[in-house]
Amino acid sequence: MTPTTNFTHDPKRESWVAAANSPVCDFPLQNLPYGAFRGGGPNTPRLGVAIGDRVLDLCAAADAGLLPPEVSRPCREPSLNALLALGAPAWRTLRATLSTLLGADTCPSGASRERVAACLVPLAEATMLLPSQIGGYTDFYASIHHATRVGALFRPENPLLPNYKWVPIGYHGRTSSIVPSGTPVRRPHGQTRGGADDPVFGPCRQLDYELELGALVGPGNRQGERLAASDAAAQLFGVVLLNDWSARDLQAWEYQPLGPFLAKNFATSISPWVVTLEALAPFRVAPPPRPAGDPAPLPHLADAGDAAAGALDLQLEVCLQTERMRAAGGPPHRVSLGNFQSMYWTLAQLLTHHASNGCNLEPGDLLGSGTVSGPTADSAGCLLELTARGARPLALPNGESRAFLEDGDEVILRGWAERPGVRRIGLGECRGRILPSA
Amino acid sequence: MTPTTNFTHDPKRESWVAAANSPVCDFPLQNLPYGAFRGGGPNTPRLGVAIGDRVLDLCAAADAGLLPPEVSRPCREPSLNALLALGAPAWRTLRATLSTLLGADTCPSGASRERVAACLVPLAEATMLLPSQIGGYTDFYASIHHATRVGALFRPENPLLPNYKWVPIGYHGRTSSIVPSGTPVRRPHGQTRGGADDPVFGPCRQLDYELELGALVGPGNRQGERLAASDAAAQLFGVVLLNDWSARDLQAWEYQPLGPFLAKNFATSISPWVVTLEALAPFRVAPPPRPAGDPAPLPHLADAGDAAAGALDLQLEVCLQTERMRAAGGPPHRVSLGNFQSMYWTLAQLLTHHASNGCNLEPGDLLGSGTVSGPTADSAGCLLELTARGARPLALPNGESRAFLEDGDEVILRGWAERPGVRRIGLGECRGRILPSA
Repeated sequence: MTPTTNFTHDPKRESWVAAANSPVCDFPLQNLPYGAFRGGGPNTPRLGVAIGDRVLDLCAAADAGLLPPEVSRPCREPSLNALLALGAPAWRTLRATLSTLLGADTCPSGASRERVAACLVPLAEATMLLPSQIGGYTDFYASIHHATRVGALFRPENPLLPNYKWVPIGYHGRTSSIVPSGTPVRRPHGQTRGGADDPVFGPCRQLDYELELGALVGPGNRQGERLAASDAAAQLFGVVLLNDWSARDLQAWEYQPLGPFLAKNFATSISPWVVTLEALAPFRVAPPPRPAGDPAPLPHLADAGDAAAGALDLQLEVCLQTERMRAAGGPPHRVSLGNFQSMYWTLAQLLTHHASNGCNLEPGDLLGSGTVSGPTADSAGCLLELTARGARPLALPNGESRAFLEDGDEVILRGWAERPGVRRIGLGECRGRILPSA
Repeated sequence: MTPTTNFTHDPKRESWVAAANSPVCDFPLQNLPYGAFRGGGPNTPRLGVAIGDRVLDLCAAADAGLLPPEVSRPCREPSLNALLALGAPAWRTLRATLSTLLGADTCPSGASRERVAACLVPLAEATMLLPSQIGGYTDFYASIHHATRVGALFRPENPLLPNYKWVPIGYHGRTSSIVPSGTPVRRPHGQTRGGADDPVFGPCRQLDYELELGALVGPGNRQGERLAASDAAAQLFGVVLLNDWSARDLQAWEYQPLGPFLAKNFATSISPWVVTLEALAPFRVAPPPRPAGDPAPLPHLADAGDAAAGALDLQLEVCLQTERMRAAGGPPHRVSLGNFQSMYWTLAQLLTHHASNGCNLEPGDLLGSGTVSGPTADSAGCLLELTARGARPLALPNGESRAFLEDGDEVILRGWAERPGVRRIGLGECRGRILPSA
């Protein structure tokens, strides 16, 4: 697979927004992620692009005549849906324009740079919102390492079911309870049963996070029509970090035969900045070969090998900050580090599978990857795996331990891509703190 | 349980819209169901109320000053969401107004009746749309007869799982593919596996319907807060017929461990007229007592016994019309007749359970009951049960037989409530014809 590169990826280019040029900044000129925000002047919701420690207000930029005519109207909307519906050619045009406007080399100081600078808002003044109106949210289960470890805990006799290597397993999630990073998450109540006693209703005692990547869908397909794996480049806009909060005690009791429901739908957090697949193009890699003996994907799921397919070399970490750590002024503690390359199914395969029965996908739909867990113990993307369902609590450096999440714990997901000769880009953060049950 | 009755239920009252007074009309003065339509003058989507063979255009009625001020703005919207958000007091006010405007006794002939008549559109000229923008669709599994029979087919060793009598089992459905009655349904493709051979991808060979009732949610709850069973009267607006089209061969292969996905999300059909729980009040009955030995519901799920809780005495039938029947000019053939009273969980319990973890429900959300199957063989609400997964095909009166649906088959769901001394009301129809796979 040859990574798509053009001047928007050129690692030598810098932005005239100085903070963007720091080597540890998630949002350099080569990234240009999209989000929705309010604040920094008008308090109305509008779209923006992150650059260093600033947000380029797309509504202001459109009003100032800085954007191509064909994207100006969607850029004035309060969420990404209209831009997503336009499709890949418009996305490419807009990215090239933004890269030009924000590049030190392409936008010389003086009047033209001043016009762009007038559209910048300090990131610190922006309250981030959900990037799109999410009509449909589907959560997959694309890590075979996660599926195998979790399967072993819930079905020791039968950890990996026979369909796993053939069908990208997924289920519908709840859209109403998707919240942007920073929104506190209240510990849910639910029905649980331990052993032979009658079930009880009360606060969840096995609250967990799941580290996932979420992908936003572009134009979509009409009901009754399918998508080809080769459509992925035109259909997938970008990715966010996703925390699929999970109540394991509720899940164990409710999930058969129709799947998780109340164990998941109380809250799902996503990071606010959508990093485009175009920005991630230099980090596309061939999916790892399937182990010997595994079946090849059926033809309609075969990876087309085009620019948007393949795996992504994306580092993903989970950090935990307890109430006591915070009180002591200590930093969050990294509990795991994984890589999105380890997934069994690619985003293109998830998309193709979803539409393979004619189910219509729509602009702004969110596809969750499922927990990103690698083959090693320290790359597991949830406490259920890391602690073997609480049997081996995690020791934290301040002497605390965790079997599952406690009230006041904050979970911080981070993601970034780096590679020699390419500018590092980041996904930002997805944070959520647990509030006590009410 | 004492049924709520007031003048809007008085069986002696007639409408000045003559067709509404026929004893077989689904939409008499005592019903007044809400829907969204276009046509009959302006082609814009707007709300209406069915009366006999007419639709009262609510936008026109609001513009004419016929409606109470507090509901006039929501009645000018193209879908029910704003009216649903207003809550039960506003719903009662509007129903009483409509009953007054359309009653022969309360709206005498002359100028005032002429003003109302000017807002009527022939039902035959209305193209019905989805009644609300459905942000969330959840499908339950509330018939113990269905769960037991289906469980026996998929898990002969373990038909009814231990959680069934404690947890109202449900899962999230797909909203984008919900279509109004009359929309053709294309036979989906999918992955299936029979026996030891590798799975194949192709047109579904076990296409089925599921007879369900759908309930539309009113104001809803905030994320992190729960609803009480006694909130049901304020939270549930009304019901529609729902056909949860199901690809049984896809379902058998994909559904473990996370539940049905592509087997269901290619299409869901609903009837366009929302019959309010207020109109159904005279048909509320106490839920049948749980069999001896069954556990009582946990306290938070205990039926509050208030006006909107309890079971509904609602007859539900499924008719099938094949291509050959249609060509011969023959009528559809009834394949089953059931009653919504037979459900193990009430609508109030489904609603309360859904919000019991703090999951936020929103105006316009749709709750599907799950297949309505009664205890007898002829009251089973899907072919999977009626034919024992195709093992005993259904003999049709014209000599054809059906194990599952064939291309050209039309499935027609109907529902009605009747009871001595009360005016019969109907839900109308939910129709869908199968198109060949493409």
